[in-house]
Amino acid sequence: MERVIKVGLLGLGTVGSGVLRILEINNKEVTRRAGAGIEIKKILVRDPGKKRSVQVDPKLLTTDPWEIIRDPEIEVIIELIGGTKEAHLYVEEALKNEKYVITANKDLMALAGAELLLLAGQKGRNIYYEASVGGGIPLIRPLKHSLGANKITRLMGIINGTTNYILTRMSLDKADFAAALKEAQEKGFAEQDPSSDLDGKDAAYKLCILAGLAFNSRVRYENVYVEGIRGINLRDIFYAGELGFTLKLLAIGEEINGGIALRVHPTLIPSTHPLAGVLDENNALYLVGNAVGEVMFYGPGAGSMPTGSSVVADLIDVIRNINHQVENGIMETDFLEKRIIPIEMLSSAFYLRLEAVDQPGVFAGLANAFADEAVSLDRIIQKRSVQGKAEIVLITHVVEERSFNRALEKIKAFPAIERINSLFRVVES
Amino acid sequence: MERVIKVGLLGLGTVGSGVLRILEINNKEVTRRAGAGIEIKKILVRDPGKKRSVQVDPKLLTTDPWEIIRDPEIEVIIELIGGTKEAHLYVEEALKNEKYVITANKDLMALAGAELLLLAGQKGRNIYYEASVGGGIPLIRPLKHSLGANKITRLMGIINGTTNYILTRMSLDKADFAAALKEAQEKGFAEQDPSSDLDGKDAAYKLCILAGLAFNSRVRYENVYVEGIRGINLRDIFYAGELGFTLKLLAIGEEINGGIALRVHPTLIPSTHPLAGVLDENNALYLVGNAVGEVMFYGPGAGSMPTGSSVVADLIDVIRNINHQVENGIMETDFLEKRIIPIEMLSSAFYLRLEAVDQPGVFAGLANAFADEAVSLDRIIQKRSVQGKAEIVLITHVVEERSFNRALEKIKAFPAIERINSLFRVVES
Repeated sequence: MERVIKVGLLGLGTVGSGVLRILEINNKEVTRRAGAGIEIKKILVRDPGKKRSVQVDPKLLTTDPWEIIRDPEIEVIIELIGGTKEAHLYVEEALKNEKYVITANKDLMALAGAELLLLAGQKGRNIYYEASVGGGIPLIRPLKHSLGANKITRLMGIINGTTNYILTRMSLDKADFAAALKEAQEKGFAEQDPSSDLDGKDAAYKLCILAGLAFNSRVRYENVYVEGIRGINLRDIFYAGELGFTLKLLAIGEEINGGIALRVHPTLIPSTHPLAGVLDENNALYLVGNAVGEVMFYGPGAGSMPTGSSVVADLIDVIRNINHQVENGIMETDFLEKRIIPIEMLSSAFYLRLEAVDQPGVFAGLANAFADEAVSLDRIIQKRSVQGKAEIVLITHVVEERSFNRALEKIKAFPAIERINSLFRVVES
Repeated sequence: MERVIKVGLLGLGTVGSGVLRILEINNKEVTRRAGAGIEIKKILVRDPGKKRSVQVDPKLLTTDPWEIIRDPEIEVIIELIGGTKEAHLYVEEALKNEKYVITANKDLMALAGAELLLLAGQKGRNIYYEASVGGGIPLIRPLKHSLGANKITRLMGIINGTTNYILTRMSLDKADFAAALKEAQEKGFAEQDPSSDLDGKDAAYKLCILAGLAFNSRVRYENVYVEGIRGINLRDIFYAGELGFTLKLLAIGEEINGGIALRVHPTLIPSTHPLAGVLDENNALYLVGNAVGEVMFYGPGAGSMPTGSSVVADLIDVIRNINHQVENGIMETDFLEKRIIPIEMLSSAFYLRLEAVDQPGVFAGLANAFADEAVSLDRIIQKRSVQGKAEIVLITHVVEERSFNRALEKIKAFPAIERINSLFRVVES
């Protein structure tokens, strides 16, 4: 236990503070498991004079990244500054200087992960990124190791805490979207500009990382079909509930006949599905493997200490690596190229809520339009009409997206159909 | 990829067949991840002539364990015969012959794991036992690695599929205990002699393995307080539901002031708790760490392919180990001795269902008996009396077990109390 590994920290925000705190309160456990001492030698900050929630020796702080990245004594760089431009530069230079890299940066890993991992491999190093998806939940390591005996056929994740918090408040407290968003912002679960979360972008980046690993391929953000949660109305959540479903923003990846389909969209899942019970800001990843069947990993998808927990787990592995007790784990450098299947080529069940004039024949016309495209209906609710308008909610059986879209165009053209209020995909199992 | 690692398989039952099948259908993925070829060189069976669900070259089969264990070419022994006497003998001899050992044997690991791991360490080898708890769910590796930055303070597991299947049937189908058990036996989720499952023993063995790892200590079966599910009546499941709870057989381990408390018993948990949604034969482990907070791992707790998935994941690690790409992972040989806290010293909330003569003053007497022991009541249901008997259901606040037991003795002595029908512990969060 004499050896002490020197570590450079880039960034001392939410996650960085968590890392320091964990190294303090769990020092004995962490060093025992790592088999060496750990010294945080230098920390990159923007403002060394800023007041911080964690006590830190001011002498460790620097505003010069190169002082850390090029320090020959530092063997491990922990990148927690976020963003892609500077983070990319620093990580690249760190690898070139033969340092191990740990990062919590999902954008960086989604955009440049494959290239950086290749560089790491060339330098005999590795990048650890457990904290980049799912905060404190172990996801990367189980995918790489524990499920290594499987071909993963499907993954479905609740991997954005902000939107799950909002949907939970809408569902449990009957809060409308605006009120739920406001509450999320007040409690720190949504940023002041919540676009990236609400529009599904954050989830799409994380899906790229998970799907790349699960399907052993390179997956780009542009390959993901993305729909956010802004259009969701409280009525949809309640109708879904009446029909036995829960509405969640899911990130879904599937391997179908050697191709990969990737999408993020609001989804109705059966209320008995394990993902349906994932509440508040929690995250979960549900996986189907051809040997194991269905497994799910659940926990806090963000936060100082949970995300710090994943960073420090990576640090333990890195240090064991440096001490030659582990060599680089499994590297993700031999990606297979797999074709991307666009969403139009997929099949899905659909939930549709629409407003029609309450007159004879409307229902029949609707049913015929669906029948013409071989879209069969699974469940229908027609609510009491108010002021001559009927609200109709229906769920189709699984159909090709293209057939459904054709039926939808026909329906939209009916004079008696006043408005398509909402449209969501349904996953039955 | 020229190197081929030779493996000996002890046992070709349910799990052994799954292992062979996975090595067949996922051969490309498994060898790529392992970085070497895998050859099952010999298989120990009782009856070489027996018809099997998996195709296997008859030349591989042998009835002589030593032919496998002492074969100098075989580097890895996979022990899947179960039981403790012979399995212990074989594993010990395999380690003495400097072979790596993979086992799915929970009894062996619970009873002799510490001793065998020590021997493995002395021989520069290791024992992998992911499959011994939770079937296909990654539990051992996440506990050892992914959550390495944490002090685990509590674990709660649904780690017996048989009892969870029975409780699910009772809850969802209103089946009584006997009918649910019969269905479980017909579907292969319960054995013909289901005692070890129903009485909580199976869960207690698995708890020993998990708690030993989580709290880094040695835990013995005798240290676990065990109660099974035989006494559970359908009425309790419905009253629990009315009060917002779900009844599950939980294995609970806690570290309290440096001591460890271990118990397996039927438990009421809030119906919104992630464990409450774990249905049918599925298993789940819920963990609280001082950095990560609450995480849960969910999936199939048994079965040929799921358990095989864990065995083959271990095999991939072993082979990487043999190729010096990993060295022994984290060893569990430096256990700390921690005192065991008996259940009488714990505090808990309680659910109580009792039958009383429906006469004035009964309720007051009950309330006074509790008040005398400082047991305060949280929720009470009194059902309409039938034939002069009232059924009373109540839940206490958290109290010391000793106080509750004293109050219970007083209540039992009341002439108006005819019967204590059931008594369960309640976990509020």
